[in-house]
Amino acid sequence: MAERNAKCEEEKGNLLAPLLHPPGLVHPFDDDKLHEECGVFGIHNADDAAAHTVLGLHALQHRGQEAAGVCAFDGTTFHTHRCQGLVADNFSSQEVVNALKGRSAIGHVRYSTTGETALRNVQPLYADFSSGGFAIAHNGNITNAMHLRRQLVKTGSIFQSSSDTEVIIHLIATSTFQTLMDRMIDALRKLEGAYSLVAQTREGLIGVRDPLGVRPLVLGKLDGAFILTSETCALDIIGATYERDIEPGEVVTITDEGLFSHKPFPSVNPRPCIFEHVYFSRPDSYVDHMNVYEVRKRIGAELARESGVDADLVVPVPDSGTPAAIGYAQESGIPFELGIIRNHYVGRTFIEPAEHIRHLGVKLKHNANRWQINGKRVILVDDSIVRGTTSVKIVDMMRKAGASEVHMRVASPPTRHSCFYGVDTPERSKLVASHMNVDEICAHIGADSLAFVSNDGLYRAVGEKSRNNNLPQFCDACFTGEYPTHLTDQDDSEYHSQLSLVALQSN
Amino acid sequence: MAERNAKCEEEKGNLLAPLLHPPGLVHPFDDDKLHEECGVFGIHNADDAAAHTVLGLHALQHRGQEAAGVCAFDGTTFHTHRCQGLVADNFSSQEVVNALKGRSAIGHVRYSTTGETALRNVQPLYADFSSGGFAIAHNGNITNAMHLRRQLVKTGSIFQSSSDTEVIIHLIATSTFQTLMDRMIDALRKLEGAYSLVAQTREGLIGVRDPLGVRPLVLGKLDGAFILTSETCALDIIGATYERDIEPGEVVTITDEGLFSHKPFPSVNPRPCIFEHVYFSRPDSYVDHMNVYEVRKRIGAELARESGVDADLVVPVPDSGTPAAIGYAQESGIPFELGIIRNHYVGRTFIEPAEHIRHLGVKLKHNANRWQINGKRVILVDDSIVRGTTSVKIVDMMRKAGASEVHMRVASPPTRHSCFYGVDTPERSKLVASHMNVDEICAHIGADSLAFVSNDGLYRAVGEKSRNNNLPQFCDACFTGEYPTHLTDQDDSEYHSQLSLVALQSN
Amino acid sequence: MAERNAKCEEEKGNLLAPLLHPPGLVHPFDDDKLHEECGVFGIHNADDAAAHTVLGLHALQHRGQEAAGVCAFDGTTFHTHRCQGLVADNFSSQEVVNALKGRSAIGHVRYSTTGETALRNVQPLYADFSSGGFAIAHNGNITNAMHLRRQLVKTGSIFQSSSDTEVIIHLIATSTFQTLMDRMIDALRKLEGAYSLVAQTREGLIGVRDPLGVRPLVLGKLDGAFILTSETCALDIIGATYERDIEPGEVVTITDEGLFSHKPFPSVNPRPCIFEHVYFSRPDSYVDHMNVYEVRKRIGAELARESGVDADLVVPVPDSGTPAAIGYAQESGIPFELGIIRNHYVGRTFIEPAEHIRHLGVKLKHNANRWQINGKRVILVDDSIVRGTTSVKIVDMMRKAGASEVHMRVASPPTRHSCFYGVDTPERSKLVASHMNVDEICAHIGADSLAFVSNDGLYRAVGEKSRNNNLPQFCDACFTGEYPTHLTDQDDSEYHSQLSLVALQSN
Amino acid sequence: MAERNAKCEEEKGNLLAPLLHPPGLVHPFDDDKLHEECGVFGIHNADDAAAHTVLGLHALQHRGQEAAGVCAFDGTTFHTHRCQGLVADNFSSQEVVNALKGRSAIGHVRYSTTGETALRNVQPLYADFSSGGFAIAHNGNITNAMHLRRQLVKTGSIFQSSSDTEVIIHLIATSTFQTLMDRMIDALRKLEGAYSLVAQTREGLIGVRDPLGVRPLVLGKLDGAFILTSETCALDIIGATYERDIEPGEVVTITDEGLFSHKPFPSVNPRPCIFEHVYFSRPDSYVDHMNVYEVRKRIGAELARESGVDADLVVPVPDSGTPAAIGYAQESGIPFELGIIRNHYVGRTFIEPAEHIRHLGVKLKHNANRWQINGKRVILVDDSIVRGTTSVKIVDMMRKAGASEVHMRVASPPTRHSCFYGVDTPERSKLVASHMNVDEICAHIGADSLAFVSNDGLYRAVGEKSRNNNLPQFCDACFTGEYPTHLTDQDDSEYHSQLSLVALQSN
Repeated sequence: MAERNAKCEEEKGNLLAPLLHPPGLVHPFDDDKLHEECGVFGIHNADDAAAHTVLGLHALQHRGQEAAGVCAFDGTTFHTHRCQGLVADNFSSQEVVNALKGRSAIGHVRYSTTGETALRNVQPLYADFSSGGFAIAHNGNITNAMHLRRQLVKTGSIFQSSSDTEVIIHLIATSTFQTLMDRMIDALRKLEGAYSLVAQTREGLIGVRDPLGVRPLVLGKLDGAFILTSETCALDIIGATYERDIEPGEVVTITDEGLFSHKPFPSVNPRPCIFEHVYFSRPDSYVDHMNVYEVRKRIGAELARESGVDADLVVPVPDSGTPAAIGYAQESGIPFELGIIRNHYVGRTFIEPAEHIRHLGVKLKHNANRWQINGKRVILVDDSIVRGTTSVKIVDMMRKAGASEVHMRVASPPTRHSCFYGVDTPERSKLVASHMNVDEICAHIGADSLAFVSNDGLYRAVGEKSRNNNLPQFCDACFTGEYPTHLTDQDDSEYHSQLSLVALQSN
Repeated sequence: MAERNAKCEEEKGNLLAPLLHPPGLVHPFDDDKLHEECGVFGIHNADDAAAHTVLGLHALQHRGQEAAGVCAFDGTTFHTHRCQGLVADNFSSQEVVNALKGRSAIGHVRYSTTGETALRNVQPLYADFSSGGFAIAHNGNITNAMHLRRQLVKTGSIFQSSSDTEVIIHLIATSTFQTLMDRMIDALRKLEGAYSLVAQTREGLIGVRDPLGVRPLVLGKLDGAFILTSETCALDIIGATYERDIEPGEVVTITDEGLFSHKPFPSVNPRPCIFEHVYFSRPDSYVDHMNVYEVRKRIGAELARESGVDADLVVPVPDSGTPAAIGYAQESGIPFELGIIRNHYVGRTFIEPAEHIRHLGVKLKHNANRWQINGKRVILVDDSIVRGTTSVKIVDMMRKAGASEVHMRVASPPTRHSCFYGVDTPERSKLVASHMNVDEICAHIGADSLAFVSNDGLYRAVGEKSRNNNLPQFCDACFTGEYPTHLTDQDDSEYHSQLSLVALQSN
Repeated sequence: MAERNAKCEEEKGNLLAPLLHPPGLVHPFDDDKLHEECGVFGIHNADDAAAHTVLGLHALQHRGQEAAGVCAFDGTTFHTHRCQGLVADNFSSQEVVNALKGRSAIGHVRYSTTGETALRNVQPLYADFSSGGFAIAHNGNITNAMHLRRQLVKTGSIFQSSSDTEVIIHLIATSTFQTLMDRMIDALRKLEGAYSLVAQTREGLIGVRDPLGVRPLVLGKLDGAFILTSETCALDIIGATYERDIEPGEVVTITDEGLFSHKPFPSVNPRPCIFEHVYFSRPDSYVDHMNVYEVRKRIGAELARESGVDADLVVPVPDSGTPAAIGYAQESGIPFELGIIRNHYVGRTFIEPAEHIRHLGVKLKHNANRWQINGKRVILVDDSIVRGTTSVKIVDMMRKAGASEVHMRVASPPTRHSCFYGVDTPERSKLVASHMNVDEICAHIGADSLAFVSNDGLYRAVGEKSRNNNLPQFCDACFTGEYPTHLTDQDDSEYHSQLSLVALQSN
Repeated sequence: MAERNAKCEEEKGNLLAPLLHPPGLVHPFDDDKLHEECGVFGIHNADDAAAHTVLGLHALQHRGQEAAGVCAFDGTTFHTHRCQGLVADNFSSQEVVNALKGRSAIGHVRYSTTGETALRNVQPLYADFSSGGFAIAHNGNITNAMHLRRQLVKTGSIFQSSSDTEVIIHLIATSTFQTLMDRMIDALRKLEGAYSLVAQTREGLIGVRDPLGVRPLVLGKLDGAFILTSETCALDIIGATYERDIEPGEVVTITDEGLFSHKPFPSVNPRPCIFEHVYFSRPDSYVDHMNVYEVRKRIGAELARESGVDADLVVPVPDSGTPAAIGYAQESGIPFELGIIRNHYVGRTFIEPAEHIRHLGVKLKHNANRWQINGKRVILVDDSIVRGTTSVKIVDMMRKAGASEVHMRVASPPTRHSCFYGVDTPERSKLVASHMNVDEICAHIGADSLAFVSNDGLYRAVGEKSRNNNLPQFCDACFTGEYPTHLTDQDDSEYHSQLSLVALQSN
């Protein structure tokens, strides 16, 4: 009937305001996790650049499942294909990949969208500059994007998306410098926040990591080709080697001539995101040359040492709690068992069943393995607690399956603050640790005991002696509230009075 | 299999060049007509403004069947719905219309598209100016749009469509004048070509007709509401009264306060398009207070007087030749008969059947009414001959049905030149009259005789004594080659060398 | 969201009952016409049999626009493609046609459907008999189908559609005769009602016309191929010659050996449907060797003679009233003018606009040509009046356009009775002539005068001296109520009590 | 362009033959597993019966991902919704579930399909019997279905699907017994093979498990409602209790009056499928009151005892090898580590990338966790080896990640024979163990050592002392070739000569 027509588009002209609090897709089963909002990939000087990019994006799919895009350049024309949905569902045909001609390509996977029309926001974004075509893919969030956008609109820039990435494009287009690289650096210097960028021009790729290096960006090689991407697992899938991490504040250009590195920003102490180790990155990836799975096992071991408890079995909350649970079990000697079975066929949404069978919640995704649990003292290990809603249900599920004791151990400190650097965090009041202490949370979720790993324990697991409280080695603002950049749009007094004027969607 | 996904978008970044010669949709049956490329509609101060606009666009559907769009403003938000396909197929649900809230709305129907991705080009186009939202619908063609676009891109404007209409938007956005109206007039003064515009702002509507008045724009009233639209048939369908034509060079603003008229351009002699009378406009419309059906009957009568021939029946080439055929029959006293029957269920495309049943061509749409034709001397009346391909088939069809003589009479002079003012004409070499004289065309189509109405005969039918060759009363460039404006993009020496750099799709 | 999934199917197991009063598609603009419910086409021994069939169905599109299907046999396999919608929209690709391999094919266009799931009912229906594959396409309606169905279900037949055509298939499948032809004739002898059938077996085609010959079926030839189809216009489109009408009660088999004719039924006086001449058939078709356009002109002339009136112009209600209007104008000498202009771009449905612009009704499809009408005495000519709803609006439209007098003339007698032979008629109470006399209808539609052609006038137009009231030459039950067959399902006492048990959809 | 239209259907009339070797969907990553072909669910006397059924099918999704269907009965009407794709993707809207009214519902998930048109084959199948509506869902395979079908067609039955389930329906329809239950038992007695059925009538549900009990069927209770389903995990998700397994040869009827049990077949020794324990069933399910996860751990422990090897870590081939790997690690004391990381976002198909990056195969789904593997002696544990293709790639992946030794342990005996009881097995020649011995397979997959669990080891893990070779306690034909029923269709001499006549798709 009112079937959405593929050939139609509905928009609100003043579409920006509603995006401030994007309704988001319903993630009934994952709403208790933070969500990394993007992954990027770029390759230059490769046969089948687009095919490699598609594979790389597939390996980065955990960093964003809402949308994906690829832009390829064949020496004459930029070809783009952008879709909502999974890489494997949308880039699976030879027809699509063959149309993305060229030896140079960039791609993007994305978390946040607000429905059909947001296709305009799917990256890579593309613009025709006077110097020629330009495509860009962005992981992070610009914290003064609204401020900059207002200025640009005043001087005649017309925005077509609600993405903060488009601010970067207009800053480049309107820069008065001569060369594209000078214009780009001119633009970057105006940005606050976190950004790892892969851009594409007629000459090749440009890779940028913000001065603090909040979001990751790594460099790989495959025969004569260079690769820029968010995680090493995207190198593995195409058989490329992991060369090094792009350094905080580094700008690299990759052309047929090779790779050139620039450092156009004043030097500052880096603050890479520590949550990449805890949850975002794939266990098989290396972040700053450390294996993510190994780090997570070490966090589990720290937990066992910091807050050990006598029990019969260690049960991971699947799947993200598994490495820490293995670490905990190995350190403690308590058997590791799959006490919770996951249903892998969970779709994006599900029925809200009738009144009396409501609140199924977690059961659609998880079921207690009753035989294992019944009559046992269970240590549950999860990677983090965000809202706490899943923990409540999982603990209850263990009780109903007959657990005699349920002890919850969490492989990160309490998440108390929102992230403004490209991670989808609930507003602060929704974070259970923002308004409850550990005992209160323990009571709330109904566990017999609850412990989070300490800040120092976490820093030890990533190879530090402890957290340097004067000059923290990582961005851990979600735990500590210590944000390493200005948050202009948050602070801006205009923000509150002109809320409806302009707003930007994080990406 | 490789089914096009509704959630996907494929583009060529450098997508503009290919559009110079847009492949277009295949119109196997109508490819021998010129095609008006747009119709516009706007209404202000009406309940259900969008519903009225949808009805108006439905009445204008003959001016463009490829796409349609509506933008409504509810005092706070601009709502748009834009689709490829017919108005009746895409705006038929209450759900769609209800979402287009507000007492002010504009709409557009459009002829030319180049497939799925051209949704970006479907109008109304919308932009967020610093002064607020702005939507615009355009009928015509800017003949220096490529030139202006190159300049705008150099100073940082980023184009998102390939439409010449977007040039107008960027000219307004980057104008240094203060008020929106001053910025708009500043922009309009830079334009060459033909344009009838309906724009929408937070205050109301703006209507513009270019100084020559090439394309039509009429003013209507319905209770307290004002309407701007391309043809009076769009007023009839909503029960509005036809007030007057917007004058060439006139700019009207329609707000809650009423209608205000401006004349910001130097005065010139108007040159409205004479082909609106011949073919584009609907027979029930009034153009400059003349009934289109009546004018066409008068052209038929001119033909009977100028090139009468003895015959048994007058047969219209349906449906566009019908009024002139009735005029011819009444003037000559020869019976009018439906000697060709039209199949109304012709879809957009059809099979190319196997080799030996190819070249069905016109038979999918038309069939001879053999009983009437067999053994008779037939006068065929058509409105125009463009490529001549249909004429060849229709004459042949008459012969095969047993006609003893076939005389072709055409209700317009030979079409010898391309139109650059918003009409889809084949390139000149495809116009049969550009390289054949009347006798040669007659032989080519296989008729026993052929006559076109004379230029003066045509001018008489529209109420002039004759064509004023020094200062023609109409734009008749398609017949005479006398273009009333510069054709900068055509003449531009850069045009030939930089073909691939920038190109604009007419709309 | 709740988008209808192409891969899904929703059904009601007991889906038959609701179809008794099929909701039907909304035909807001054509609901005041009777609708022929099918057209059939078959061709044997032709290259590209499917391509010919598709073209033939396209020419028959006026007989049914809801669905279409083709079944082709390549000597080994039966290939079918069945769709909802127009032939030109669904059979337009080489891919579709090429998949329908073989030198033998049959096809069907269909009027009535009840939505998505009714794809099961789209013909040709196909069954695997023990003798091999069998496909069938049917124009008409079996008036004892419900009765037969109940018997078949009792003995173990399982119905998959709600079509009366499936009854024929099960009767053949369960017949105890040996040969397929004997089984088929055994089945046909059990049928009451009207049916023109084209069936396809591994050997070739079978064509059947019921003993009364209610629905048409003609025979054509093209090179070595035989064609069976509902109207001659389907022969014209493929360049085939019109050989003859299949005779009432005739069964023909067409194989590689040629055509064989059988007469397995007792001989009765034929009663072909007279409404085929009035409205159903295309004007360029020949029915029983009479040209339909010519017959309609003659009806118009009869009207002018029977009920002439002084007036300024004769205006057809487009398009079906046009031939009769031309006949009236020629007979009366009053000028024929297009006083009503039709919008050809009317979709299947349209918005019900907001309250105060409701009742647009006919204006979406028609507009008065005011210049012609204003101040004139108008004779409106239409082919029939069914519900009367359109007449009310058209007369009103003429008045509002300034007509000084409006005289309605109708090219058929008053439609007072439902058809049970394959025509979609409203239930009797909805037929305006079932409960009003001519004067009352005249007052109801607001005309200054109203006249229908007389029964005898209509019979004269089709070449009879007058109606033979003892043994009518045609089925004119819709005018007279004299049904030429039993109406078992209508009369069946079980009908009323077991309404919910079994019901059949006419096709 | 030639986009498949949702309103269309293409078929081959003689569509059955091609299904003998169904092309199947491409499962590039799972093609090295056997696939359970169905799961069934039924519930009677429950509010929101359909919602419960949808949840149950979701929990059974691992038994069939290609299609799903639900049929609900509201006391008057049977409502069905059948889709291709996942339960969560197709039954997720309130709209869909609400349309499935009633307190009684059955459902089905299905593995094998052959594309769009196979929607006809999606279960539950529905038929109108003279006794009223009847729906049926089937897990298993009838090994004499082709034989029975030929007989039924000869006597006039018309088949609409290629499913063996339809044979059951026609046997019931044409049975000469009086009551539905007698007709059903009459039909069942003609069947050979494996079947667990849930049928629905106007009175309630009927559950049947074949005399050997090859496929599982369990009984649950929830308040006043009875549930019949394939696995206990479908009881867990709706909070129902696991009452007992339906016994081999048992027929239960469930009405408003309660549950009644029948034993209409001669008693035989049961032969439940042992592969349900190895792979098909979900780890949290109970089969015959044994916990599947526990059984799999025990198989792993058997493996450690039977074929222990010195190594550094035990790595599961995720996810199906995980329970046995944990069992192996616990028994051996060698650490369990996630040495292979799974990408959960694998779509149904994926690009075949360009030539030189082909053969990615397993890398799209799995990546070595290099840090863990590098320099280590690795024991890989998988549940089974079918074709061996995945094993080759996984071993190679371990080597490339730096494993110094790779030992493969398999938690089932070598799979040497096809299954004809409702499991999708490759033809025998594709089973690597059908033509290689263990040493040859070891060499083929490139492992340092390879061991399968012994038949007796497997029987010990499921609680037997050893396999009773005279009267095996389970159906283990895929390992031993000892089929417990006739295989009429396989043996039928007609099979080979009349291949094209009739064929049945397993379901």
